[in-house]
Amino acid sequence: MNVLGRHLLLELRECNPTYLDDLEYVKEVMVGAAQSVGAQIIGESFHQFKPQGVTGVLAIAESHISIHTWPEWGYAAADIFTCGTTVDPQEAAQILIEKLESTRPYMTEIRRGVEVPDLVSIP
Amino acid sequence: MNVLGRHLLLELRECNPTYLDDLEYVKEVMVGAAQSVGAQIIGESFHQFKPQGVTGVLAIAESHISIHTWPEWGYAAADIFTCGTTVDPQEAAQILIEKLESTRPYMTEIRRGVEVPDLVSIP
Repeated sequence: MNVLGRHLLLELRECNPTYLDDLEYVKEVMVGAAQSVGAQIIGESFHQFKPQGVTGVLAIAESHISIHTWPEWGYAAADIFTCGTTVDPQEAAQILIEKLESTRPYMTEIRRGVEVPDLVSIP
Repeated sequence: MNVLGRHLLLELRECNPTYLDDLEYVKEVMVGAAQSVGAQIIGESFHQFKPQGVTGVLAIAESHISIHTWPEWGYAAADIFTCGTTVDPQEAAQILIEKLESTRPYMTEIRRGVEVPDLVSIP
């Protein structure tokens, strides 16, 4: 079996906490990132938590993009999972990093659908 | 920052391929797994692809559960991301493994929201 999917795990640290608690902004960023890289959105679910935090999941024809935010920590965990070669997940990741103003992001790429997943840390 | 989330990456290999191409069955398994472990479903998106394959994403109050299937390989990539301590992601993982009849699963747990994500392979 070849690699079937590329899965980016984004640790978005030191983000702008105001953005992380703003559902409409988070949604705009996620949808914008998906569209910018040519992903086809086929489903979405966004939720505002109280007292704080947002969860957003986009199902895309190429797999999914998700985010969970902790404004109190200035932190968000985002995942960009793509199959096929039409969408570059790292391009989408850069958009999330910039728009959420993460000054200390950490990115890991995991190749899915291989015999044993291998982990590549991206400095 | 403490660990904010537990993220299980499930490589479901050698599944029953018929199940993997059956949206209703996959949905039943995913929703059932979420409910069994006490997760609160807050959104869902399921899609059947042609010629084959299913994508399913559940937004849960505790984060998300997703699956992407490749019936032609008998393979599915599932993710179970939970925050808090009320839901045990490994219990949900066992349900997916059993219900999709994966005879050769591989599970990795990644702790999210720590300074540098650490990866724990589960034999």
